[in-house]
Order: sequence, then structure tokens, then C-alpha cells
Amino acid sequence: MTYCVALKLASGLVFASDTRTNAGVDNVAVFRKMHTFEVPGERLITILTAGNLATTQLTISELEERSKAAMERHPTILETVSMFQTAQLIGDTLRQVISRNATSGQKADSTFNATLIVGGQINGHPPRLFLIYPEGNFIEASDDTPFFQIGETKYGKPILVRAFDKDMSFEAAVKLLLVSFDSTIKANLSVGPPIDVQFYVNDSLKRGYDTRIRADDPYFMKLSTGWGEALRDAFQHLPDYERS
Amino acid sequence: MTYCVALKLASGLVFASDTRTNAGVDNVAVFRKMHTFEVPGERLITILTAGNLATTQLTISELEERSKAAMERHPTILETVSMFQTAQLIGDTLRQVISRNATSGQKADSTFNATLIVGGQINGHPPRLFLIYPEGNFIEASDDTPFFQIGETKYGKPILVRAFDKDMSFEAAVKLLLVSFDSTIKANLSVGPPIDVQFYVNDSLKRGYDTRIRADDPYFMKLSTGWGEALRDAFQHLPDYERS
Repeated sequence: MTYCVALKLASGLVFASDTRTNAGVDNVAVFRKMHTFEVPGERLITILTAGNLATTQLTISELEERSKAAMERHPTILETVSMFQTAQLIGDTLRQVISRNATSGQKADSTFNATLIVGGQINGHPPRLFLIYPEGNFIEASDDTPFFQIGETKYGKPILVRAFDKDMSFEAAVKLLLVSFDSTIKANLSVGPPIDVQFYVNDSLKRGYDTRIRADDPYFMKLSTGWGEALRDAFQHLPDYERS
Repeated sequence: MTYCVALKLASGLVFASDTRTNAGVDNVAVFRKMHTFEVPGERLITILTAGNLATTQLTISELEERSKAAMERHPTILETVSMFQTAQLIGDTLRQVISRNATSGQKADSTFNATLIVGGQINGHPPRLFLIYPEGNFIEASDDTPFFQIGETKYGKPILVRAFDKDMSFEAAVKLLLVSFDSTIKANLSVGPPIDVQFYVNDSLKRGYDTRIRADDPYFMKLSTGWGEALRDAFQHLPDYERS
């Protein structure tokens, strides 16, 4: 499993992804699930991946390879003219990778499916955020649905729904994401730190703040403890049920 | 889907279940998922059900029928000598119902599976709480795992893990359960009020407080609003992330 979230704020985009992959509980590894394609001053595209690791790695590799040696296939991910076209290109690549594995004669116990979040901005266009399905089609974040989650989404959703505010600062957004990740990590062994976090500031057209938060990060540890205590406090202060 | 929870407190057992069943989002109905078998002064057995409605109804009906007209099959659910034997009887009945449907020639899109929570006490024995799987086998609640959830368990689990205390009062336990149900109801359309709640006081050997909490119950509405505000407050008071 995996947990990745992207938020669309008024001031920009925030991405976060865990790094645990597992094939069974006895085969656990750390892989980066956040991938950025950048031409400073022209475009910034960040992809978060969830699902079959072979599928997501091959999808990212194909996008990279084509951008280096494009051959007959254009446009590459560094040439698309809009975020919409970028999402189409990534969706097509994902679908082709999945269908190639699914029909190649071999069968696997688990499916080859994967789901991606793609966000960023291309010069002259507004920033956009998409969720891409294994079938290659996609939906876009809006004011009504200003964030996307992929992977193990349930445990971390309640706090996102209750505390998200599109005018929050990047620093408050990272706090929100880390609380959401903490709830998920506590409940699902297949989601684990370190957590990659990236900001994109609207119209900057370059990578913003980008960091990896480890399990022993002092802020993350303080937040995890503090949130647990705050939840218990909040619960204690609500009135008990009264028998009628 | 469904959401049912049972807690094992130092002073007794608390049961809660939602009442929504659905076959598709356009076929929604209210059914009771909490069933009690009682011989006052001798035994109290409460069953919570999740899964295929035909399976759970037939399982409960068979248990009822046999207790009225036992014929050759003994013991019935009103005759078992211990909660362990009760769990075995219910597990066997559930497995037989499922396998009869699964092998009867007809195929259904969804499976006939169901999962049950069984708790109660029989005179001369301690109160016990079991989770029964579709295969008919079961596990028992312990000090390490003092509660069971069935159905849509993920959204409502974080608060149970953080705020459960085996020495809490029945009234505080109902508050905890209603917060857990509120988070689940807000996130999953297939879980819905009214919510059935029942207490069992250890060694009372009879049904304790038993009520149905509706969506417009003033306490439930106050708790839902209050919990949302308390979560946002708690979140606001945690320190924001600081860029290093």
C-alpha cells in the first residue's frame, strides 16, 4: 500500500507521499513515490504514484526516456503545451504500461494497476491538479474537491475534510498533511515514513521547498504526540451521553 | 456496508450498530443489525451482524427457530453451557448458511459472506466477546484488543484506538461510539443512522439499557458539531511546520 496526498491551495500546490513499498509483510523497502519534471521558468510537473511498483516505475521511466530521446513520439512531458495535455500523455503512458503487462501471457496474483496524482503549471497557463486512473482517464481538482488522496485513503481523510482551508499557509498545510499521514501510519503497516513533501508556489514555474521528513524528525514526533493528546483532550471535554 | 462496534469494559459490554442496508445506492433500507437472546437471570447473548443481509437474517432466524422448536439439534442458543459453546454454535450456523447458498447452483455478483460480533454472559461464567468470521471460526477480545469492529471499520478506528479506556463509564463509552459512528457516517454513504445502542452490566444476566439514537437526536447532533469544532481547535493549536 501507499499513501499520497496533494492539496490545491489558493497560493499553490502541496504534495506529500510516503515511501514504503511491500510485497508481503516480510518484503518491505523504501522507494520514492514523488517524481518531478522541471524546466525552470517554463514548467514544473510533479507526479505521485500508488499501486504496482513495477507499473509506476516503468511509467515514470518511459516518461523520462522519451524526454531524453524522443524519437518519433511527441510531445514528451517536457514539451506538452498545457497541463491538460500533460495529464493525457501521462494517462496514455500509464494505460499502455498496464495493458502491456496484463496481456503479455504472464499472470500475477495481484493486478498491475496503479493510480497517479499529477500537479503543476506550464508557463502561460494556471496551475492544475489531476487524479489519473489505471484506465488512463482522469479528473481535476476543483473548489469542491480541492485535494486528492491515493492508496490507503480512509484513515487520513476525516482530518483533511474537517481542517482543510484553501487559504491556509504552506506551513499549516504541511501540519495538516503530517497529521493525516500520522493517523494512516498508526493504522496501516504498509504505509511508512520517511515522508516526501514538496511545495509549488503559483507562477514560480520552478520547484519550491522540497524535503524528506523522517520518522525521528523532531517536529513530526512532537506533532504525533501533540495530536494524540489534543484528540483525547477534545474527547474528554465533550459531554457524556445521558440515559433518557 | 455496515458499521458495528462492541467494547469490552471493566464493568460490562457496550454494543452499537447502524441500521442502513443497501443493494446499490438506489436501494437503501433500514434493518436492525443487533439481535439479543435472553433468559433473564440465566443468560444474555447479543449478536451484531455485517455482510450479506440474506445470510445474516437467515443465520439469526435459524438460531431463533431452533430455540423454539429444537427437534434433533441440541443445544440451542438458549441451552449452551458457555459463551465459548455459544460462539461455536453461531459460527457453525453462519458457515452452514453461507455454504448452502454458495454451492446451491445460483451465482450472485457479490458474495454471501457475513461477519458477526457476539457478546454476553451465561450464569456461572465470565462475560465474553467474540468476532466470528464467515468460515465459522472466531477470535476473542482481550486486554490488548478490547473492542471489535465489523463493516466499514477504518474511518472510525483512530478515535477508538486513542480514547478507549476499559475503566470508562457506559455514558463515556456511548460518547466514544457515537464519535466513531459520526466519522464513519460522514465518510461512507452506506453507513447511516439510526444507531442501536445497548449496555450489558457484568453479572446482571439481563438486558441493560437499550436505545435507538436517531439522526435528529439532540445529543448526537450536539456531539457531531462539537467534535468537528474540537478537532479544528485542536489542529489550530498545534504548531505549524517550520522550513529548515
